[in-house]
Amino acid sequence: MKLTDAQLATFDRDGFLFFPGLFSPAEVKVLTDAVPALYARRDVTNVREKGRDAVRTNFAAHLVSAPFARLGRHPRMIDPVAQLLGERVYMHQFKVNGKAAFDGDVWQWHQDYGTWRADDLMPTERAMNIAIFLDEVTEFNGPLMFIPGSHKRGVIDAKHDVTTTSYPLWTIDNDLIRTLVDRAGGKHGGIVAPKGPPGSMLVFHSCLVHASTSNLSPFDRVSVYLSLCAVSNHIRRHKRPEYIAHRDFTPIETLRDDCLLAAPPIDLPWKDGLPASALVTSPEPLYDSARSAA
Amino acid sequence: MKLTDAQLATFDRDGFLFFPGLFSPAEVKVLTDAVPALYARRDVTNVREKGRDAVRTNFAAHLVSAPFARLGRHPRMIDPVAQLLGERVYMHQFKVNGKAAFDGDVWQWHQDYGTWRADDLMPTERAMNIAIFLDEVTEFNGPLMFIPGSHKRGVIDAKHDVTTTSYPLWTIDNDLIRTLVDRAGGKHGGIVAPKGPPGSMLVFHSCLVHASTSNLSPFDRVSVYLSLCAVSNHIRRHKRPEYIAHRDFTPIETLRDDCLLAAPPIDLPWKDGLPASALVTSPEPLYDSARSAA
Repeated sequence: MKLTDAQLATFDRDGFLFFPGLFSPAEVKVLTDAVPALYARRDVTNVREKGRDAVRTNFAAHLVSAPFARLGRHPRMIDPVAQLLGERVYMHQFKVNGKAAFDGDVWQWHQDYGTWRADDLMPTERAMNIAIFLDEVTEFNGPLMFIPGSHKRGVIDAKHDVTTTSYPLWTIDNDLIRTLVDRAGGKHGGIVAPKGPPGSMLVFHSCLVHASTSNLSPFDRVSVYLSLCAVSNHIRRHKRPEYIAHRDFTPIETLRDDCLLAAPPIDLPWKDGLPASALVTSPEPLYDSARSAA
Repeated sequence: MKLTDAQLATFDRDGFLFFPGLFSPAEVKVLTDAVPALYARRDVTNVREKGRDAVRTNFAAHLVSAPFARLGRHPRMIDPVAQLLGERVYMHQFKVNGKAAFDGDVWQWHQDYGTWRADDLMPTERAMNIAIFLDEVTEFNGPLMFIPGSHKRGVIDAKHDVTTTSYPLWTIDNDLIRTLVDRAGGKHGGIVAPKGPPGSMLVFHSCLVHASTSNLSPFDRVSVYLSLCAVSNHIRRHKRPEYIAHRDFTPIETLRDDCLLAAPPIDLPWKDGLPASALVTSPEPLYDSARSAA
């Protein structure tokens, strides 16, 4: 899978690309069937919605679940991102976000790179997000909303929201959101929410401003979010635990395109539980060079 | 304005009718210009969003603001409702809901009649809601969501939600919502959210199940909601204060169709403040007959 010049131009302008139905129903089913076991885990890898039992976000499924481990090395995802970044990539973060029927709460407007810079000392924005829909996404189950072109604004000052939901986030000032939306077309194109069947894939820039509203519908909206970082741009601090911000900067070796269905053997280093080291954190940068790079 | 047979059949099937752009931009401006003065009032008529200053709902604007008083007697609203109910109507409730940019919070799934029956002892569902959009409604600013045909389910047992938002509401069990949405078409038609320009009007059945999600966009979504009740079906209890559930059961006399722009003189009984009587409440039914009627 190689992006065309037209796709590269679209990505440069909008900050995202959308591939409806890229993964087949059979491939999606392999992943969907593995979600309940992940969400049932009573450990730090599951952050639940404020005051509810529904899972808001699950971390590091690619280290404990074979289908998600294979997804994390899938060429349909890895290759386009490596092409966009012009470099091989490693897995910075792996989430399976619930946005459960009735219970899924809002994610306020934010850039992912804001968090990675502030918390993880990731030197530049040379990292990319991928979302894969495990459920159909409609206007009613809290679709991801983008402000097209907002990635061009670069890194935006943010404030740490630790109150409105159960997962703390560096969020963006309302006045700036208003400006960015106006610049992108206001009520007519200033916000877009790609919708599509299960198996659809979104690739979006780590500086693209995005949010999602609460899900009041009876339809779950589970999505996998992978954050892939150029190897040379690896994080310079372990302030957050390893299950949130990974520390293995080895370039990802892709599997074959049929890996989700062929199910080759795959290593699952955390299948028997998180190693103690995954919880160790430090406020100190890893290297002296980090201070200037950050 | 007289509803056609086709419109009557649509209303019977779906429980609502939508009239995009029914009021002109000039008419809408008269109303929009009157909103800031209403929302600035620091009294019981403004319920604000939980932990925020933004107004969630304003009550009884038709008794304090001339443009809204004229709207409350507008033939484009009153006549179709009287036609649907086959009887003259009085004003049961008058709200200007903010759903403010960034701050507008969710309204959980509910029927309005559930509240009117439980709190106000309104004998039957012979009452109707009207919404008039003062802002453009898009998929991004928390549109009203309906479950088509859910009004046929009649009155649904509900639980009193006094925690999730700043305004208590009788809300409906998730399993029943799921059933109603499935019956209406599931992911394809089971929920609808009419969208349109300012001045659009929705007429919907008092048993139609509806909700709206939070508004994360930079676009306000102010709407006027009028609840009109058949005069013979007037409420039988004053458990809620008069600014929320009105006690004047006189049939509404409509003004001329050009009243918003012609601006004839109009009586504003509460313009100098709420009378003390408007705050008096009682848990007792008004008449003996009420006990059997309710």
